[in-house]
This record gives sequence, structure tokens and C-alpha cells, in this order.
Amino acid sequence: MRAISFKNDRLFYLDQSGLPTKEIWKECKSLKDGISAIRNLEVRGAPLLGVFVGYVLYIASKNFSSSKKNFLKQFNHALNSLKNSRPTAINLFWSLNKIENAVKSNIEKDVNTLKKLILKLAKQIDYQDRLLCENIANFGIKLIEDGDVILTHCNTGSLATAGIGTALGIIYNAYKKFKNIKIYVDETRPLLQGARLTAWELYKRKIPCTVICDNMAAYLMQQKKINKIIVGADRITAYADVANKVGTYNLAVLAYYHKIPFYVVAPFSSFDLKIKNGKDIPIEQREPCEVQKLNNIYITPKKVSVYNPAFDVTPSKLITAIVTDRGIIKPPYKKSIKKMFLEL
Amino acid sequence: MRAISFKNDRLFYLDQSGLPTKEIWKECKSLKDGISAIRNLEVRGAPLLGVFVGYVLYIASKNFSSSKKNFLKQFNHALNSLKNSRPTAINLFWSLNKIENAVKSNIEKDVNTLKKLILKLAKQIDYQDRLLCENIANFGIKLIEDGDVILTHCNTGSLATAGIGTALGIIYNAYKKFKNIKIYVDETRPLLQGARLTAWELYKRKIPCTVICDNMAAYLMQQKKINKIIVGADRITAYADVANKVGTYNLAVLAYYHKIPFYVVAPFSSFDLKIKNGKDIPIEQREPCEVQKLNNIYITPKKVSVYNPAFDVTPSKLITAIVTDRGIIKPPYKKSIKKMFLEL
Repeated sequence: MRAISFKNDRLFYLDQSGLPTKEIWKECKSLKDGISAIRNLEVRGAPLLGVFVGYVLYIASKNFSSSKKNFLKQFNHALNSLKNSRPTAINLFWSLNKIENAVKSNIEKDVNTLKKLILKLAKQIDYQDRLLCENIANFGIKLIEDGDVILTHCNTGSLATAGIGTALGIIYNAYKKFKNIKIYVDETRPLLQGARLTAWELYKRKIPCTVICDNMAAYLMQQKKINKIIVGADRITAYADVANKVGTYNLAVLAYYHKIPFYVVAPFSSFDLKIKNGKDIPIEQREPCEVQKLNNIYITPKKVSVYNPAFDVTPSKLITAIVTDRGIIKPPYKKSIKKMFLEL
Repeated sequence: MRAISFKNDRLFYLDQSGLPTKEIWKECKSLKDGISAIRNLEVRGAPLLGVFVGYVLYIASKNFSSSKKNFLKQFNHALNSLKNSRPTAINLFWSLNKIENAVKSNIEKDVNTLKKLILKLAKQIDYQDRLLCENIANFGIKLIEDGDVILTHCNTGSLATAGIGTALGIIYNAYKKFKNIKIYVDETRPLLQGARLTAWELYKRKIPCTVICDNMAAYLMQQKKINKIIVGADRITAYADVANKVGTYNLAVLAYYHKIPFYVVAPFSSFDLKIKNGKDIPIEQREPCEVQKLNNIYITPKKVSVYNPAFDVTPSKLITAIVTDRGIIKPPYKKSIKKMFLEL
């Protein structure tokens, strides 16, 4: 199961906005295509965005000028456009910076070599993300026991990464190992990534799950029907505050109140050590129509005002542990995150 | 603004399932019509259900037998069918029991007199509910200050009662009195009573509001953007555990964590003194399709499992105060509720 595909020098992606009813693959032929796919959440998920932008940059570069000066101008413009496509997930910036640094370190090379370099890096990032997912799943399995009932939010699986996923990757691994694991999936309003994407992935993999509306999670916890919560992350600060899909902080507070372990799962590329406090993470505000309309029909009076942050921030004190590709890190996070990056 | 209308011996109701896009009034011509309207949430809201079932019983009784024996058989059948229509809101049972007791106390009277008695009681319950709303709003205003930012859940206004509403009635009253009140409305999945009905009522009354997805409330509270939460109730036990629209308990936990006052608003007819603990309140489980489909299009894979409780239970310890038509009651609730009913 893959959400993007690079074949015969062409980039294809599964349009996630149509799932689960429409399974349509589209081709990304230009920078414009790529940015539009990102903005419209046709391609989404923090790690997958990191992989996708690498390939988009390469696809765009194919039409760049053969003069070095113009090539670099076009390259910088493409970089900036991609950096402006979505503000919160750090993986996107991580990949773009990696490619930018590589190109700038090889600036003396000819244009064709630079294009090949971009592709090489895009493929590296892709390959690396798959490995990161495997590593995460192998560390994360240690937190799971037979009989666990796990709640997850949004989508953190094969549709959100280049591999088996982050939080959902652990669940896949756990399902292989244990007979008796039950999965609850938050539908994840407004764009329903849980109901549409996570349930679709689980269904494809023949793993039974139960979808709930986001506001039902508390009632399940009160009835002791959930004993672990596992979510992904779009950006993690040096002190372990976590930006993730809106509704994550809600779950973290509920988990704290009901004494349920709350795990965040992300590769090292989701960490932003330049930022300490979660309040400094830029939170994307999206269009009101995402809340006002469903399947293109208004569910609110047309002129009603709407608040639509795509993410929220969970403070580190509510997080039991963070599962990364390098291991499981625990409080005090300031120290354990620093240690992880020193060893990297 | 009224959600039902009894005119020229006929019963009409605004089909709330079509709001806000379709404003269609329907006639309830039979017991079957009435039960279908209740089951499909065309008429909903705990106090309004109490009022509506009185009129439905009268409409049904118009076609009952003229023989006393058969009349009573049909009357009991209608009573039981209505009692089985929805299990959680106590007001429905309260009204039906009131009419049942009155008919049984006058069992020696002729059939026509009994029919008139049913109508008289239905009108009384209707009139009383309007007064209860006024009283509630007058007591509730004492909790509101200029500058308050209030979050509410589901719909508790003119569409949920025979009058101006319970929780929303207080907000209407507050908006009249203070210039500077801000209202956030939880969209209230799965059936979107907040987005569809509360936002519609507020819009009709020209009161600005902002609709949010249920999972965004926590993030607003974290940012200190909400300073009061006001919700309705479908049933309140003798010890003040509260069944209300699913998502209410979620808000109560969030309010507790963020130290925000959490107010429940309901008339005395929403109390069920026969039950002490919330876990003994029957919680209606509704059809999976309410979560699986939106505007009749699947948002989950078709065969995915769904959990769909219509209500949840908030324990009394999370409730700052309960606003009733008799005044504002505060902890210790066991004592204050008992006192209120002794004075009734």
C-alpha cells in the first residue's frame, strides 16, 4: 500500500480527498500540480509531505532553465513556493532544507547534475522514511500488550508516510503479533481523515476497527473501554510540545483525566529543535467551508462564522512517551530529546 | 420561533432533520407519524419531546374507538409506543405519565371527555414548558457577565423546547442584556444539532456565533478563549449525574481541567429522582449509518463498524451548578435537589 509512486521519471499520487469512495491516482506534472495537491490535502500526512515535496521539486526542476543562473532562480522560487504550501508539519521543511543544502554545496556542478542530485535526494528521503516507519513500529510494539484497546486520531499510516506509518504502523505491527487487539478510530473532523483514511487502510488490511465521532472518546474512556491512545505528530519542539491534527490536545486532556497512557509517535524528522514551546509553532488556519459544508452541502447557515485550525498543540506534560525511529523517549523530555539528537 | 404548532385541532411540526437548508413544516396526523418524527429526530430536544408526545397522544386519540374498553386499550397501546420511541430523555415519560394518571383518575368519564382531557393536558404541558423556559432564562442570567465567551453544545433553544429554550434561552437573555457576549457552538456530531440547529436559531435572531468542530473546544480553552460552558440535559438523577447529548461529558472533563465553570440547564421535568447514579440511565444507541454517512454519502468504508451512543453521562462532581426553573442549585446536589423538590 503506497500513497505516492515515482515510476519512469513520473510522479503519481493517490488523491486522498476522494477516499474512501473514490480511489483515483493522479499525475503531478508540475510545481503547480504539487502545491495544489498539498493545499487540497490530496497528499497529506507530515512524513509523506516530506517525501512528496522532494519528488515535486525534481518534477518541477525538469522544466527549469539550462542556464545555471536561471536554474537557481527557478529552484529558489520552487523551494519557497513549497515552503509556503503548508506551515505546520516540519517534515516538509526538513526535506526541502536537505535538498537546498545539497544543491548549494554542489553549486559548481552543471544543471543536469543538480537535477539528478535532487532526484537522488528525493529517493533517499523516500527510502529513509520507509525505514523510519519500520524502526518506529519495532520500538513501538514494546508498548503494546495483548488485549489492548487502542484509540487513534487522524491518519498516520501508509497514506501519511512512505512506509507502513507512524502511530498506525505500530498498530499494524501489534495486530500481527497479538490476536486480541481492538482499535477505535476518531473520525477526525472536519476532514474526516480517521473515518475516511484510517478506516480505509485498516479495512484494506483486514484489521477490524470501530469508528467513533471525536466527541465520543471521553464516554468510552469513562467506561474503561480504552486503555491506550496513540497519535502522530506534525511537529515536536525541543521540550516535547506536540503539534498534531486538531483534536489531539482534546484526547491528551481526556487521557490525563482518565489515567490512560498517551503516546506520540514520529520520526526524528518531525522534531524542530529550534523551537522550545508549543505556542511558537505556526498553526495553519484553514477555510471555513471545510466546517460549513459536507459533501458540498451546507450543514450550517451559509453566513455563519467558523473557527478552523488544522492543528492544536499538546503540552509535553500530558505525553506519557514519544516513540521515534531511534527508540522510546520519556520525561524529562528536554534531556531525553537532547540525548537522542546528540546520538544521531 | 416555534418548532411545533397546534392549530384548528391539527398538529404541525418543523422537520428539524432538513435544517438549515430545508425549512419544511409537516403535519402529524397519526400515532405512526408522531413516532416516526421522534425516531428520525424531525422533532427532538428533551423538553420539546415532552410537549410533542402530549399532542401526538391527542391526535392519535381522535381515531380511537368510542367504546370505553377499546378506547383504553388503544390509549395504553399509544402510551407504550410513545414511551418506546426514545429511551433517554425523561421529559417524554414525565408528560406521558402525567396524561396517563389524569386519564386513569377520570376513568369513569365518557370517551369524548377523556379525549378533551388529553388535549387540555397537552396544552397545559406546552404552556408550562414556555413558562419554565422564561423562569430558567431569568435565573440563568445571574451567571452571565458582560464580556463572557460562552460555549454551548447541541441545541437547547426554541427548537428543543416549547419556549425560548433552556441553555440557549439563557444565552438569548444574556444577549439582550449585555452588549459584549461571544458564543461558540459545538457542531455536535454525528447529527450536527449545533451546526444545523443552534447556528440557525442564532442566525435567525441575529446573534453572531462561531461554529467549531467538537474536537476544537479543548484548543479554544487552552488559549483561554472560553470562560463559560452551558449545556442542556436529557435526564438528571437525584444525585445530579446528567445524561445529555454525546460530547457533553467530553466538555465537562475539559472544563474541569481548564478550570472553566460548567453549567447544566434544565426544567424540573428533566429530573428523574428514581435514579441516583448516572450509570443507571438508559443510553440510546443509534444506527451506524448516522456516523457512516453524511448527506447520504459514505464517509467510512461501507462495512466498517461504528459506535453511536446518542448521549453520555456527566458525573455531578464536574458540574458547577444546575440552572432550573426554580432557581440555581449547587453542590452538595443530593441535598439541594431534594430541597428543590420538597418546595415544589
